[in-house]
Amino acid sequence: MVYATADGTGNERLRVGMVGGGQGAFIGAVHRYAMRLDDRIALVAGALSSDPANAAASAAELGIAPNRAYADYREMARVEAARPDGIEAVVIVTPNHLHAPVATAFLEAGIDVICDKPLSTTVADAEALVALTARLKRKFVVTLNNTGYAMVRQAREMVAAGALGRLVSIHGSYIQDWLTKPIDAEGQKQAEWRTDPARAGQSAVLADIGVHAFNLACFISGRDAEAVAADLFTAVPGRRLDDNAHVLVRWSGGARGTILASQTSPGHDNDLSVRVYGDKAGLEWRGTRPEELRFTPYGEEPRTITRGGAGSFGESRRVSRMPAAHPEGYIEAFANLYRDAAALIGAHRRGQEIDDAHPALVPNVEDGARGVRFVAAAVGSQAKDGAWTNL
Amino acid sequence: MVYATADGTGNERLRVGMVGGGQGAFIGAVHRYAMRLDDRIALVAGALSSDPANAAASAAELGIAPNRAYADYREMARVEAARPDGIEAVVIVTPNHLHAPVATAFLEAGIDVICDKPLSTTVADAEALVALTARLKRKFVVTLNNTGYAMVRQAREMVAAGALGRLVSIHGSYIQDWLTKPIDAEGQKQAEWRTDPARAGQSAVLADIGVHAFNLACFISGRDAEAVAADLFTAVPGRRLDDNAHVLVRWSGGARGTILASQTSPGHDNDLSVRVYGDKAGLEWRGTRPEELRFTPYGEEPRTITRGGAGSFGESRRVSRMPAAHPEGYIEAFANLYRDAAALIGAHRRGQEIDDAHPALVPNVEDGARGVRFVAAAVGSQAKDGAWTNL
Amino acid sequence: MVYATADGTGNERLRVGMVGGGQGAFIGAVHRYAMRLDDRIALVAGALSSDPANAAASAAELGIAPNRAYADYREMARVEAARPDGIEAVVIVTPNHLHAPVATAFLEAGIDVICDKPLSTTVADAEALVALTARLKRKFVVTLNNTGYAMVRQAREMVAAGALGRLVSIHGSYIQDWLTKPIDAEGQKQAEWRTDPARAGQSAVLADIGVHAFNLACFISGRDAEAVAADLFTAVPGRRLDDNAHVLVRWSGGARGTILASQTSPGHDNDLSVRVYGDKAGLEWRGTRPEELRFTPYGEEPRTITRGGAGSFGESRRVSRMPAAHPEGYIEAFANLYRDAAALIGAHRRGQEIDDAHPALVPNVEDGARGVRFVAAAVGSQAKDGAWTNL
Amino acid sequence: MVYATADGTGNERLRVGMVGGGQGAFIGAVHRYAMRLDDRIALVAGALSSDPANAAASAAELGIAPNRAYADYREMARVEAARPDGIEAVVIVTPNHLHAPVATAFLEAGIDVICDKPLSTTVADAEALVALTARLKRKFVVTLNNTGYAMVRQAREMVAAGALGRLVSIHGSYIQDWLTKPIDAEGQKQAEWRTDPARAGQSAVLADIGVHAFNLACFISGRDAEAVAADLFTAVPGRRLDDNAHVLVRWSGGARGTILASQTSPGHDNDLSVRVYGDKAGLEWRGTRPEELRFTPYGEEPRTITRGGAGSFGESRRVSRMPAAHPEGYIEAFANLYRDAAALIGAHRRGQEIDDAHPALVPNVEDGARGVRFVAAAVGSQAKDGAWTNL
Repeated sequence: MVYATADGTGNERLRVGMVGGGQGAFIGAVHRYAMRLDDRIALVAGALSSDPANAAASAAELGIAPNRAYADYREMARVEAARPDGIEAVVIVTPNHLHAPVATAFLEAGIDVICDKPLSTTVADAEALVALTARLKRKFVVTLNNTGYAMVRQAREMVAAGALGRLVSIHGSYIQDWLTKPIDAEGQKQAEWRTDPARAGQSAVLADIGVHAFNLACFISGRDAEAVAADLFTAVPGRRLDDNAHVLVRWSGGARGTILASQTSPGHDNDLSVRVYGDKAGLEWRGTRPEELRFTPYGEEPRTITRGGAGSFGESRRVSRMPAAHPEGYIEAFANLYRDAAALIGAHRRGQEIDDAHPALVPNVEDGARGVRFVAAAVGSQAKDGAWTNL
Repeated sequence: MVYATADGTGNERLRVGMVGGGQGAFIGAVHRYAMRLDDRIALVAGALSSDPANAAASAAELGIAPNRAYADYREMARVEAARPDGIEAVVIVTPNHLHAPVATAFLEAGIDVICDKPLSTTVADAEALVALTARLKRKFVVTLNNTGYAMVRQAREMVAAGALGRLVSIHGSYIQDWLTKPIDAEGQKQAEWRTDPARAGQSAVLADIGVHAFNLACFISGRDAEAVAADLFTAVPGRRLDDNAHVLVRWSGGARGTILASQTSPGHDNDLSVRVYGDKAGLEWRGTRPEELRFTPYGEEPRTITRGGAGSFGESRRVSRMPAAHPEGYIEAFANLYRDAAALIGAHRRGQEIDDAHPALVPNVEDGARGVRFVAAAVGSQAKDGAWTNL
Repeated sequence: MVYATADGTGNERLRVGMVGGGQGAFIGAVHRYAMRLDDRIALVAGALSSDPANAAASAAELGIAPNRAYADYREMARVEAARPDGIEAVVIVTPNHLHAPVATAFLEAGIDVICDKPLSTTVADAEALVALTARLKRKFVVTLNNTGYAMVRQAREMVAAGALGRLVSIHGSYIQDWLTKPIDAEGQKQAEWRTDPARAGQSAVLADIGVHAFNLACFISGRDAEAVAADLFTAVPGRRLDDNAHVLVRWSGGARGTILASQTSPGHDNDLSVRVYGDKAGLEWRGTRPEELRFTPYGEEPRTITRGGAGSFGESRRVSRMPAAHPEGYIEAFANLYRDAAALIGAHRRGQEIDDAHPALVPNVEDGARGVRFVAAAVGSQAKDGAWTNL
Repeated sequence: MVYATADGTGNERLRVGMVGGGQGAFIGAVHRYAMRLDDRIALVAGALSSDPANAAASAAELGIAPNRAYADYREMARVEAARPDGIEAVVIVTPNHLHAPVATAFLEAGIDVICDKPLSTTVADAEALVALTARLKRKFVVTLNNTGYAMVRQAREMVAAGALGRLVSIHGSYIQDWLTKPIDAEGQKQAEWRTDPARAGQSAVLADIGVHAFNLACFISGRDAEAVAADLFTAVPGRRLDDNAHVLVRWSGGARGTILASQTSPGHDNDLSVRVYGDKAGLEWRGTRPEELRFTPYGEEPRTITRGGAGSFGESRRVSRMPAAHPEGYIEAFANLYRDAAALIGAHRRGQEIDDAHPALVPNVEDGARGVRFVAAAVGSQAKDGAWTNL
């Protein structure tokens, strides 16, 4: 894919705007780091906060021109769609409950979408977005960012290539400790909205981190969940939503497994892992050691495959910026998603064929909807005292 | 506690006999290593095999006098009970289904019992043993041997002392890979009886290793299970019993958790672990690194407590033979159980008070029964499509 | 420090040019990733290759205007110095032997310097650069990039604060395996120049990686080497320079230690570590686990301090972009150096006081010279059969 | 090799006596645990302390008959040599300076020797013992116990089989922290004699732990040291002997390397490791993870070989008592040495050929002498300001 640059001197960047992510927010800044790394994306517009002063100040800090700093995302969609140099994609980094309305506004304005997870807080909204995206023939990327890690993609390739044989069990786990104490009741902003049913949805822990574990397990294994039996609970008295989830899963193709999520487990800052076992081999990936994949063929010595090291495949090498053992991390993985997303959306807008992008590896609206269905099924199982519930 | 030795020169050893554990068996040899380490136990009799030739040859190899090498355990109970120098305790290391009848025979002969896990294959048998032991006022030790590790005892002490605060979640896991292939159908003796409903009981994976994970979680946390919801399954086609178990648990006192057991997960030779989280701290112990305890007070740096190292408490120091970082392992942990059992039984037989033993740390018939109830409840839940089932 | 941006809407970026780093080079691309991350630096000029076609193509790919893509670094220094919007700093990423002449040309043109390590291939050149920089009152940053890691800065702070007590021993080690086979004799370009005395200097392994281990040990410990006794050797027959170095060190302040460097040790892709022991505590940092610091106060439990986690100090938090356990890596550490360098140079050019930068943490020409002296002393010791040699 | 047992019912045990190891000593108890594990050795006599009361009490505690509890080792040698059921071997676990005179007395009495390390405190004594042993055709085992670890033996087999190719570098390291503070000046008995030139020899740290690192590096690599250049120093003011040693080594066959030893490095309870690199592969063994061997063939994924697991060879399987991942530790490794020593000495005394023992794996008087020469050469180098000194 060839980019012609705007200024005639080199390569062209995808023009994007951002909704959410103003001063005081967390994930918006992460998206911006990720956008910058490969210099293929230009952030030129934003409705960065529902607070007008914050929106303006945040835009100025980021070098966004004042006339493209909007106080309202609907206005942004309308004005940008009308500009000849308007944004080609919107990046949505608001609280969960706004994902669906914001995405809908931009899709309808003819602008492609890059949206943080979870896709929405209800299955109905998720399915509406799937349908709208298909009808309008737009691109919709969901930033299930852990899929961007080189060794996660390596793991997916290995499973797909049959290195594990017939899959027997699949386990995902995401464990944190930042909600061990009732900080949501004490005014911590990030904790507050994530445990508020109106903004987070029916489950806090699953919407916030459980969907990452679930979608990553799907991504690596190539399987979907067929049914779940869930035990959701709240460790901190008075908290309005769950902060722990223990979920049994029946996967497509016959494997079984678990998805565990906790935000009240001291000693785990941010511990995401996926383990997959087949009748030939097992593999394990852990987000705190993202450059390593433990691969254990039955009857052979356990081995560690590292990014760029011996045994790493094509895809993990393609997305590497650094040689082996020069650690890449969270931002680089996120940037892998943005690099692919920029290629995907850019080609789509020019009506070109993608030749060097890997669209199958970029989580889309359907992948996002899968996570929403998982959360809903777990909540449903919980309501029926843990009975197996189909997705 | 003072021992007077048989030969008048020093300390006296507890006289024991063994049922099972002849040539070709596995766990019997482990018990013998454990008995020898502290030189407080003498193995003087045995019904080591149901095959008379094997029984005789095995006894000779172990230096057991020919007239105390029995072909039948009932004869052994009768004859030894009548000898003035007869055994004081029997060690039972047969397949699971024989634990209850053998134990019953020796209890009734007035001989104390040291029995491998699981206590029995049915709850009825377990409860009968509990009742019989109480009625006859005998000592009954169940070799849930992982409780013998110094750092496991340290973990128990820390939970009991409140270092973790109010317990929120408790997870046990035991993962192996030796049954990944259908070796039970190909004549491997150890695999064969463990997957045979007639000899192993209703669940293979829970009886063989799941009870270890469960009892260890109980031992460390000081909690018992109140209800379970189970997903048991068989990974290897044609196998007669389950080889994987995913169990949700509601613990006494309000904590939730999981017990996972698998014998078909390549890359895990023998991977037992327990994780406990409270509102003040978490801790994790892993059988492949038995000398370490990961202790994570909320808001402080994670730390590693090692046997004999800084932060280790009284009990872990008491059971240490080596200084810190001179690794002790499986046999030493097993020997800790035997050392305590010998002290416990020896004192009991002399009608003495125990003063230097720690009877609460030696798993007894009630601890064994707890494991049997857990297996039965999980099997019961499975029969009701995973519904929560009380123990 | 306040930036006024070029377009009046926000912040201004430091304008830099690059010498070296064209297509086929390695480290230049790393510098560019690092520059982009925080959006505080604009790469606007370059003499990216001594091959004119490569220079032009590389510049075009990077969006550098054709009239600022130079074929010769002297011309670049002259022309850019004359432009009102000329570069404020040059980034030097050439082979080692060109560092000194290129830096001299730009210093003399009034342009600040950001130079890769080693500063030069001879002590004379290094000392001339120190003198020239002082005379011209210019800023000179040496990208000893591992000093940019958050936990390395944490380690330095801890030593400086006395957490280790009186220092007793200091060890640095950098081990790789990419030169295990004679790839330099087989045309691998990176290996070729690094083992060529004319381009790499008197020692290959020390100039390439040994100086990293040495400077990092200095940076963390706050000590300098006073004398060394060296055993340098070549593992691969026919190689023109050493590929292994075992060096004993006497540090200022009385500590002793070692610096080990190897490029022929299979199993170590890129393994940099520093260990420091005092009479109160020890600490260890390892480049393959850059987010962790093992801290071991005497008589207390060993603990792991992680970036952003409990126990992390001011400086490590200042340079963090991500929360704890969202891994940052090599690029982020490099970017920390660039962020500080941009602040330092920007303020210097405006004659301002630095208020939010940390100039002491940015390695300068004197730090670079220290590394060159270390290499020369080790080579000198080797020439005297390993006799202790002062720096 | 067939044992006929003393009581005619089974196997016969080797009869041994012990010099040193009474109440309050450390290493004697370790030897006794090791002797018991396989039930092939009977401890029947002892001169356990130079203090008669301690000697008698210690013997009684161990079940040694009063008439075989000696107050003087010379008397013990004389009396036991004259008994028809006298000891076949003596175990020497005294402070270092007594090893040579005690061993000499028993050798001359016709009794084989099992002696703790270091063999002696002077090279002259070591060479005299080598000569005496050869002249009297006795067996002399030195308990360089780390050679007993299954994975150490595996490592030796792998090197010998050429798995690493031509050896390039060999590193041994033994790091502790128990002498970080001046406990020797405060009456700690173990610390006192180990830092006393009269009892420990010319170097404390090398005699106590450095010889372990050195001999283990020799054992695994199959190489001997040809020359050393040493930096020995004392971290704790006032201590009479060194507590740290940094030694450069030139190994036979052309490899280079280092031996590091420290007893003042907080955070290392007892950290022994050996790393060996060849032109085909590397391997690393660490005493705190004794069941694992990191094996890194060049250009392939690093792998972990575990005792009993995939990739483990004949010798490591031969000495295993437990299946994979049922951890064996320090005592088991020590017991492997005793099992082989018992077989070796037993056969020798009967004039039989050894058929199931592995005498090459049992460190003998020559291996012990090698360690003494290493210490002496390092002390000699230190006296010449670190000049290379031949062994």
